[in-house]
Amino acid sequence: MTQSFIFATANPHKLEEVKAMLPAHIRLRSLSDIGFSGDIPETEPTLEGNALQKARYIFDRFGKPCFSDDTGLEVEALNGAPGVYSARYAGATGSQEEKAQANMSKLLAELSGIGNRKARFRTVIAYMDASGNAHLFEGTVNGAISEEPCGTTGFGYDPLFVPEGYDLCFAQMPLDEKNRISHRARAFGKFADQLRMENEKHC
Amino acid sequence: MTQSFIFATANPHKLEEVKAMLPAHIRLRSLSDIGFSGDIPETEPTLEGNALQKARYIFDRFGKPCFSDDTGLEVEALNGAPGVYSARYAGATGSQEEKAQANMSKLLAELSGIGNRKARFRTVIAYMDASGNAHLFEGTVNGAISEEPCGTTGFGYDPLFVPEGYDLCFAQMPLDEKNRISHRARAFGKFADQLRMENEKHC
Repeated sequence: MTQSFIFATANPHKLEEVKAMLPAHIRLRSLSDIGFSGDIPETEPTLEGNALQKARYIFDRFGKPCFSDDTGLEVEALNGAPGVYSARYAGATGSQEEKAQANMSKLLAELSGIGNRKARFRTVIAYMDASGNAHLFEGTVNGAISEEPCGTTGFGYDPLFVPEGYDLCFAQMPLDEKNRISHRARAFGKFADQLRMENEKHC
Repeated sequence: MTQSFIFATANPHKLEEVKAMLPAHIRLRSLSDIGFSGDIPETEPTLEGNALQKARYIFDRFGKPCFSDDTGLEVEALNGAPGVYSARYAGATGSQEEKAQANMSKLLAELSGIGNRKARFRTVIAYMDASGNAHLFEGTVNGAISEEPCGTTGFGYDPLFVPEGYDLCFAQMPLDEKNRISHRARAFGKFADQLRMENEKHC
């Protein structure tokens, strides 16, 4: 049975990426598909809080199953920063690429002279089901912050993040390999398990 | 297949009540059953936050599926107070009954001369499954705050709460009738659906 879900993101690129991570019976609709073009508040101090806030905001308005995700880079020596503020760490404006450059520069400056480079990427998905129950799925990948940016694939902090067990940073890895081990893939894998279970119940 | 869960409550009375609300294949263990006798932090400003905090605290220590619940009385004219602070509204010490009396007195004083008596009871259950996913289930019952306490069954604010569609307050209703329509029963009904779904998946 086809299940239909709203993905509470304004990023069409993300919508395509996520479609590939979910079971085939899932039909995704974006915010523009449902005619929503406003801003969704993201004012909570945690990834969990932000993801839930976004999913609830859309669920309360449309009453349909929906989900959102939030991702942060958590650096041990910086007590978990930039964390929930990863995307706006340097407070820069401009294109996605300009913001990413500013964020990476700030991170390298903060870590200048610090030996502990341990970090993890963490994604939290918040899912509101048809009954209004909330579900949270987390995916993490441990790694380290490199001394300088390397590679060109991916986005955000990918040129600085070397996942555990690898010599390459995320931005040097083929996208399909990154997507196999990434925080986002792990979180969506758990979410997909829940959706399959719900689907079996309805069959 | 029997599923075993830790109920993160220190209240043995609650454990028995909840056992009756869950499917027969569920085996519940209390905190004392698993040898835990410490205090669990409850420092979040929302029912959702508190319930999640408690369940996560136990899950992080024992790594086993567990759940907790948190309940509040939300009074419209008081902007949702006492809400997450319901159990400690008056800040009283002493027995459960003495605290309840002090809380009810404070509530009646706050509502003195106020015509809008609308209120709702709300329970939130936070459930950490074996994979570390978090699930939130909510149950609410709308009603009104009476002018004075009535009835003797139940506990907490039950003598002041008249559920919508009834002339009796919770404390005047037979326990099985209250448990059929209550916020807690509704939340546990949704939780039970999730557990049945997980159990079918394993069978």
